[in-house]
Amino acid sequence: MKIYGDIQSGNCYKIKLLVELLGLSYEWIPVNILADETQTADFLAKNPNGKVPVLELDDGRCLSESNAILNYLAEGTLYLPDDSFARAKVLEWQFFEQYSHEPFIAVARFINKYLGMPEDRKADFESKQAGGHKALQVMERQLSKTDFLVGDRMTTADITLYGYTHVADEGGFDLAQYPAIEAWIKRIQQLPGYVGMS
Amino acid sequence: MKIYGDIQSGNCYKIKLLVELLGLSYEWIPVNILADETQTADFLAKNPNGKVPVLELDDGRCLSESNAILNYLAEGTLYLPDDSFARAKVLEWQFFEQYSHEPFIAVARFINKYLGMPEDRKADFESKQAGGHKALQVMERQLSKTDFLVGDRMTTADITLYGYTHVADEGGFDLAQYPAIEAWIKRIQQLPGYVGMS
Ligand SMILES: N[C@@H](CCC(=O)N[C@@H](CS)C(=O)NCC(=O)O)C(=O)O
Ligand SMILES: N[C@@H](CCC(=O)N[C@@H](CS)C(=O)NCC(=O)O)C(=O)O
Repeated sequence: MKIYGDIQSGNCYKIKLLVELLGLSYEWIPVNILADETQTADFLAKNPNGKVPVLELDDGRCLSESNAILNYLAEGTLYLPDDSFARAKVLEWQFFEQYSHEPFIAVARFINKYLGMPEDRKADFESKQAGGHKALQVMERQLSKTDFLVGDRMTTADITLYGYTHVADEGGFDLAQYPAIEAWIKRIQQLPGYVGMS
Repeated sequence: MKIYGDIQSGNCYKIKLLVELLGLSYEWIPVNILADETQTADFLAKNPNGKVPVLELDDGRCLSESNAILNYLAEGTLYLPDDSFARAKVLEWQFFEQYSHEPFIAVARFINKYLGMPEDRKADFESKQAGGHKALQVMERQLSKTDFLVGDRMTTADITLYGYTHVADEGGFDLAQYPAIEAWIKRIQQLPGYVGMS
């Protein structure tokens, strides 16, 4: 299988982390977003929405959306629970991430780290802080009760949220206020097969 | 089971549509967002993220995130395919909706219909138009090829996207430009058990 991605993107890194933890073999195809490589006719045939990551199976079928890819690859492994309510909780956290976490934390990080905080984006950056902290508080509350987001075993929900949370400081979020999140990050970094973002 | 929701919200309506199509029995508990009923201690115990919809099972367990609720309720029905790749495609569309569709189309609708397009939100409204049309184009492309988003059978992906697409005109999006979407909307409205939004 092939994974089209940009390793500086947390959405792409999520997939890399899972395949490394699972020990799957894959080919990583770097796609340069800033050079508009997601907007070529070839790429749009793989994902009409023009975004990475994209998973391409050996038979040519393609799948986009980082969290859909994670769950597809984790099917049948310990990262995706069998119990239907636990599975629903995994999805709950993943939709939470896309709607209430990523648009604040990933965007603040992008403005700060990649755009270098230009004057005309400062207000935009500031406007992301409250929502980002709210998302971190929701995570902190859960991780004060359980080792991982859905109980005591790591699932794809943790990979999804780990993607941008572990680099949240690059978006101006000081994680020292969130001890349960910090402990969870260390727990993930100690897993066999763990790889960092760069 | 209980469903906490505000029927004017497309995210809540999705759940109502599915339970009616499936003929499940449920109690609908109206929650007034504008009166901050999502921010009370009681409600936050059900969903720490303070948003509707929330599903409460008879044993008291709660689940939030509209698309997670849909898939939980659809498990074992024809609305959720057995094939793992088809399931992954359902999730792909659902994550697409939360990230690339709802933040444009639902927000434009909210500014226009519920806020009555105040002068100081006009720029915000305008800024949602391009992204909304891009999402509609991605849907149109698929629906020109297949009757439903994931092949020829309706799935929860269709319910997810139907939620705000069928009222996209209230956000300033003229669906006459999208004949395949219009035909799909009619197809859904003809299903036995179909209920509208209000
Ligand atoms: N919801 C998508 C978001 C993916 C996304 O936003 N990808 C960005 C990079 S982080 C991208 O490809 N942007 C290029 C573009 O939009 O043109 C996912 O989770 O995969
Ligand atoms: N991603 C969530 C979004 C839910 C959502 O945004 N709910 C809104 C109503 S449409 C809400 O409860 N807002 C109240 C608030 O944020 O305080 C889902 O799909 O369920």
